[in-house]
Amino acid sequence: MKSIIIHINCSDQTGIIATFTGILFDFKVNILNLEQHVESDNDHFFMRIHAELEKHNIVDKSLYETLELSAKDLNAKIQIYHPEKLQRVAIFTTKESIPLYDLLIKNQSGEILCEIPFIISNHKDHEEIANQFEIPFYYIPITNKTKTKQEKEMKRLLKRHRIDLIVLARYMQILSPEFVAMYYGKIINIHHGFLPAFKGKNPYHQAWKQGVKMIGATAHYVTADLDEGPIIDQDVVSIDHQHSIKELIQSGREIERRVLTYAVKSHLEYRIILNDQRTIIFRS
Amino acid sequence: MKSIIIHINCSDQTGIIATFTGILFDFKVNILNLEQHVESDNDHFFMRIHAELEKHNIVDKSLYETLELSAKDLNAKIQIYHPEKLQRVAIFTTKESIPLYDLLIKNQSGEILCEIPFIISNHKDHEEIANQFEIPFYYIPITNKTKTKQEKEMKRLLKRHRIDLIVLARYMQILSPEFVAMYYGKIINIHHGFLPAFKGKNPYHQAWKQGVKMIGATAHYVTADLDEGPIIDQDVVSIDHQHSIKELIQSGREIERRVLTYAVKSHLEYRIILNDQRTIIFRS
Amino acid sequence: MKSIIIHINCSDQTGIIATFTGILFDFKVNILNLEQHVESDNDHFFMRIHAELEKHNIVDKSLYETLELSAKDLNAKIQIYHPEKLQRVAIFTTKESIPLYDLLIKNQSGEILCEIPFIISNHKDHEEIANQFEIPFYYIPITNKTKTKQEKEMKRLLKRHRIDLIVLARYMQILSPEFVAMYYGKIINIHHGFLPAFKGKNPYHQAWKQGVKMIGATAHYVTADLDEGPIIDQDVVSIDHQHSIKELIQSGREIERRVLTYAVKSHLEYRIILNDQRTIIFRS
Amino acid sequence: MKSIIIHINCSDQTGIIATFTGILFDFKVNILNLEQHVESDNDHFFMRIHAELEKHNIVDKSLYETLELSAKDLNAKIQIYHPEKLQRVAIFTTKESIPLYDLLIKNQSGEILCEIPFIISNHKDHEEIANQFEIPFYYIPITNKTKTKQEKEMKRLLKRHRIDLIVLARYMQILSPEFVAMYYGKIINIHHGFLPAFKGKNPYHQAWKQGVKMIGATAHYVTADLDEGPIIDQDVVSIDHQHSIKELIQSGREIERRVLTYAVKSHLEYRIILNDQRTIIFRS
Repeated sequence: MKSIIIHINCSDQTGIIATFTGILFDFKVNILNLEQHVESDNDHFFMRIHAELEKHNIVDKSLYETLELSAKDLNAKIQIYHPEKLQRVAIFTTKESIPLYDLLIKNQSGEILCEIPFIISNHKDHEEIANQFEIPFYYIPITNKTKTKQEKEMKRLLKRHRIDLIVLARYMQILSPEFVAMYYGKIINIHHGFLPAFKGKNPYHQAWKQGVKMIGATAHYVTADLDEGPIIDQDVVSIDHQHSIKELIQSGREIERRVLTYAVKSHLEYRIILNDQRTIIFRS
Repeated sequence: MKSIIIHINCSDQTGIIATFTGILFDFKVNILNLEQHVESDNDHFFMRIHAELEKHNIVDKSLYETLELSAKDLNAKIQIYHPEKLQRVAIFTTKESIPLYDLLIKNQSGEILCEIPFIISNHKDHEEIANQFEIPFYYIPITNKTKTKQEKEMKRLLKRHRIDLIVLARYMQILSPEFVAMYYGKIINIHHGFLPAFKGKNPYHQAWKQGVKMIGATAHYVTADLDEGPIIDQDVVSIDHQHSIKELIQSGREIERRVLTYAVKSHLEYRIILNDQRTIIFRS
Repeated sequence: MKSIIIHINCSDQTGIIATFTGILFDFKVNILNLEQHVESDNDHFFMRIHAELEKHNIVDKSLYETLELSAKDLNAKIQIYHPEKLQRVAIFTTKESIPLYDLLIKNQSGEILCEIPFIISNHKDHEEIANQFEIPFYYIPITNKTKTKQEKEMKRLLKRHRIDLIVLARYMQILSPEFVAMYYGKIINIHHGFLPAFKGKNPYHQAWKQGVKMIGATAHYVTADLDEGPIIDQDVVSIDHQHSIKELIQSGREIERRVLTYAVKSHLEYRIILNDQRTIIFRS
Repeated sequence: MKSIIIHINCSDQTGIIATFTGILFDFKVNILNLEQHVESDNDHFFMRIHAELEKHNIVDKSLYETLELSAKDLNAKIQIYHPEKLQRVAIFTTKESIPLYDLLIKNQSGEILCEIPFIISNHKDHEEIANQFEIPFYYIPITNKTKTKQEKEMKRLLKRHRIDLIVLARYMQILSPEFVAMYYGKIINIHHGFLPAFKGKNPYHQAWKQGVKMIGATAHYVTADLDEGPIIDQDVVSIDHQHSIKELIQSGREIERRVLTYAVKSHLEYRIILNDQRTIIFRS
């Protein structure tokens, strides 16, 4: 392990930065990047530090203990991550291939660093794409009757492969509240609409009928409320009266994949801290 | 009159363009620009022609009669406008000055061609701005009790000054359904949110709480349903967790004025045709 | 053949639209879409008509003859295209895979309609991608010495496969002036910079050093002057001081593929007319 | 004085953040915001701290001395600013009114905090606008012969009014190298083009001829090289073949004022550190 990422959050108070940067200095740990943020409504403090450990493998333990002790003193939550250890990501998909392709291509080219142990789908359409990229593909169709049983099978796979993050790349099934609760802050969905407008089904049809002049896409963490989880990223594209619904869908696809890929990359780089409905997304 | 703008709409059928361009050719009228559009859901045809009359003042009448006769044959609605005759625009405003300023500056510089006979406001804040630009200012405060009476006064002013278009430049009062009905397709509002999300009050507060990553503004024609009229233009700006509500409001202002000014300009140049909830906005 | 696309360009004069729409009406041909444009500097007129032929297979010939005769009378250039007949596209590539992937994925999903008989590359890196999509791959390495010989081989392949369009999807070789002249208006290149700034090599390094706050990409037709051909599409993305050159390249890739795909799609749909250094790009 | 802003820059080394945040903690000074950045090419470190002094008026001096001593130890440059003391800004202008208006409106509404002691222009066109906002207006026409003399007069005014920042809001004169050198890092210009493309005169005409699909504006610090100083902000807008040069200019104006206003605001909030040709622009 060559570097660590530290997330700290607590009530705002004088001396938080000095405390933690002081400890790192004492341990001769070099800070590569530090970002902090105070939420204006409740004065809650958030910080992300990216630090270089170099030859500190031996003293790691005492470093961590010191950091955690200080966190306790400040009544702060602390998380320490090891970015060199790749996270394991499962992709869930249905029929829309563009966002799936983008994740696989970017992973192949090293732009998104993670392992993808498998793809799950409730349709067979993407089996060939999985083969193209030599990733195991599990076909798990779901009906109202089989949902509980099939989610059990999914959970088994997720556990067996020690999955860290689930990406719903246009997966057109609603996961059960228990499933979602089990992976709180660990499931990213792409909604093909500009939330909070156009929740639920057929957002592009809704958008066309309403005559909107822009359409968008939203990547968010999944919570029990459909299309209501904390937003990670959004983007839009201008449209006009000439766009047919089919063209809206094509334009939307570009944004969907860009937004989903950005969200997944941000999560994998430990740049996101959840603060209830809001996400703090550090820059680097 | 040197040029005319013709709006035509009817069911799609073979020969519409040939018919009208043929008439113009027979009358030796030069077409500066022609744009047409067919709505994909109901095959309705829309066309805008901008034509140069030159020395046709004498034969105008027979030209118009021929155009209208052909429109009747095709069961088409036709409107003929004279762009050189400036439209008369009343601005309604409350306390937010930026969109008001933009309309006045652009009108002064000739970018928006119209006459502005007066500004109406339910507060006195903008009286000085009206004076800066030497435009009459009417202070018409409104309470629930005085609303009917005050709208009567407004209507009187609008009629006396032969107003063609009302622009609600962040006017924070809801006009009565009768008022709105009387000026159908003649009232443009700027909503400081990305419709259909965040209707009604305090959209920026709603947006902050929801943690959205973009905020927007929407210019639309006013109908009896609050913030539901046909959309003319929308735009957005990216935001992140660091933006306070105050900063959201500042960023939003930029978009509000841009979107409102664009909508007003499009209307004044007879580039918009209303099709129920959708707007056909021709390019030039 | 179910539909035709007609391109017309000539000096502006009264009656052009009436003439051609009149002919189509006489032949009972339904116009799906008509767009026209007059260049403001030299009053040159451009028009694109998309029309539905239906049962006109028999009379096609006399229709075309009548159109061409009228074009002659007006001293106009006319081109008639048959969009149902797929164009044949050769992709040239080197080592950057993202734009190549995008063309193949979009072609596979039917968003870009064309045939891709082969991919040519001066490196072997993309052979596997070609295999993934089952497209023949020709490895044609080029040195200063072998250039003439290798271009001969390329031309042979292009002719044998009756190629209509060459797409340089980050092909890092400069084609000879004779080669370019042979395919005038038939070669589209993506330049990974915002032309006319940052011509030539390493545009991202240039951009970083200059401290620009946006980077862009430009799709253009290839002419003998390096990175100087008529621009088809451009786009940009905001950057800041925190972006490393590596991150600039990653951000740029997104724009490159979007811009190239848009340009190729526009060309294949016969929506572009070249006017020297400028491109007229019709909307639909 | 209630708060201070500290700028620090030096070679990257372990312990910089700990050192300065430690001092602030010792003095019981609360950090409102801290941002740091390391330039990737030369490992140079930059930091901006916004801190709340509260009751520290008495000990200010020893605080500053301690900070400066530590800066010396680390071989760092340090600057301490007092944001509550408004900077004094002179606006130079010629004939284009939109960016001038924007600065005055935003200053009036409190969005840009500064004092504007006067406006200088080489034409009389904006005298009335200056009057509208009750700001002294100096008409200083310039010819090749009078340039030296007139710049002397300008310098006298700038000194007498203790000007901190000069904003060239479409000032169409080139300042002499001595003048520019005297105000290094204190003159902001808006260039109506997307630098480094289209330097110099008539960028919109150049852009139209080249057939570019986007036009832009660039705000930058002025150096002796025309249109070559460090870039602060840039933005673009999409255009197409239908835009006349007049429309390019109108579209460009929107971007010019947005970009210039953003640059001026960033400078006044002490969020910019110059690093040769690059600008480090902190977020808040």
